Amino acid sequence: VENRVAKGRKPPEPAARNVKLVVEYDGTDFAGWQRQPRRRTAQSVIEEAIRAVTGEKASVLSSGRTDSGVHAEGHVVNFRTRSRIPAERLAAAINSNLDADVVVLDAADVPLSFHATHDARSKLYRYRIALGPVRPALDRRYSHYVRGPLDVAAMRRAARHLVGTRDFNSFRAEGWIEKNTVRTIESIRFVRTKNALEIYFRGTGFLYMMLRIIVGTLLRVGKGKIAPGAIPAIIAARDRRAAGPTAPPQGLCLVEVRY
Amino acid sequence: VENRVAKGRKPPEPAARNVKLVVEYDGTDFAGWQRQPRRRTAQSVIEEAIRAVTGEKASVLSSGRTDSGVHAEGHVVNFRTRSRIPAERLAAAINSNLDADVVVLDAADVPLSFHATHDARSKLYRYRIALGPVRPALDRRYSHYVRGPLDVAAMRRAARHLVGTRDFNSFRAEGWIEKNTVRTIESIRFVRTKNALEIYFRGTGFLYMMLRIIVGTLLRVGKGKIAPGAIPAIIAARDRRAAGPTAPPQGLCLVEVRY
Repeated sequence: VENRVAKGRKPPEPAARNVKLVVEYDGTDFAGWQRQPRRRTAQSVIEEAIRAVTGEKASVLSSGRTDSGVHAEGHVVNFRTRSRIPAERLAAAINSNLDADVVVLDAADVPLSFHATHDARSKLYRYRIALGPVRPALDRRYSHYVRGPLDVAAMRRAARHLVGTRDFNSFRAEGWIEKNTVRTIESIRFVRTKNALEIYFRGTGFLYMMLRIIVGTLLRVGKGKIAPGAIPAIIAARDRRAAGPTAPPQGLCLVEVRY
Repeated sequence: VENRVAKGRKPPEPAARNVKLVVEYDGTDFAGWQRQPRRRTAQSVIEEAIRAVTGEKASVLSSGRTDSGVHAEGHVVNFRTRSRIPAERLAAAINSNLDADVVVLDAADVPLSFHATHDARSKLYRYRIALGPVRPALDRRYSHYVRGPLDVAAMRRAARHLVGTRDFNSFRAEGWIEKNTVRTIESIRFVRTKNALEIYFRGTGFLYMMLRIIVGTLLRVGKGKIAPGAIPAIIAARDRRAAGPTAPPQGLCLVEVRY
């Protein structure tokens, strides 16, 4: 018997696959994307769900990190696996192991060389500002309420100074170490809906808190506290104190990552 | 001194006013509209907030009751008060005593004869059905997810049979006593958005659970389990068991009440 076992061939180990996931989550009850000890994060619940399905310890690579409270409609990750479950069934299996506030929208096999962090060409974020005479009750989890009028034309003029390749050192969280603070914002687009102002930001990548500090600064412009023409000087200062306050996280959502 | 006090006139008691409020709330964390002992309901938190502002025990009259988990964008109530706070400041004062999931959108003085329940001429409700290959994470609190295709054309045909003055006894919660089960649905309108199907119901009033049972029945039609032409027989049965299941509450929202 021992001999037969020794001679018996093991089934060939399945080749490693690289799987890309598109993930949606409600950031309200997550301590952000990135795994942290003893905190519920989107990364940790997705890694646990993958492990429950594949039996393998999963380590996902991410298009980026979202802060605590920030949402995602199209966060992209990838992970290696030897599981033979077809991609379309993998999504359903992972989803059945996830809570209601996070879901895999799509799973697809990608070349082994695909890397969700390094290959991301651009990201689209949306910041939603609720307007009107009264704070919203239904929209409160997905917007930042601003009371009173906003000069959106002034905000648009200010935003034009932020589009392009700039040193955004004035727009990053203090105490966060980042050698290279140059980033490229490809476009800033304003969409006025009935009860809200949505600002879409497309860029190759953003510093920690950068978009929320930009929104906080644009809101100061909208309130007439900062002139649109003052933005170049705020950028040139390379000093966080030159910019406006950090807008709260719940208005921000990662809409899409392009590769 | 005693004499002077005795002679001093009391300030005239302010005349009773009738105040109408338009209220928005997220039904997720409420045990419905109506006050109940030891439950958090929308009515009880609003009455407590009014009391905190006016110092009077408030009893609000409502355009109707929403079930546990049902939302409202335009629930209308009225209450009597002797407070002299102007209506526009009353809303702000009440709001500062309310949690984030409920808000007074508008407050206005109305004639003493106004009664939010009896004077309601029509109500508009919306039921939101999330569609697509995967359940939503961000929209989960405000929609009911239905997997797979829906035959919306068949649902529209079925809905036509429900518009008008009908005995809706087949579409009311069992065990609920209601002498008169005749109601009028003025219109049913379907709006297809990118990821959802919204059904708008306008009518003079609805039985307990009626709209959710209608939606559950229409979804059976959309899935090909009930023929659109079977609706008249379901109405005629006057039996809850003839209709489809009760759709869950979170898809339903009271949009507007007309007076």
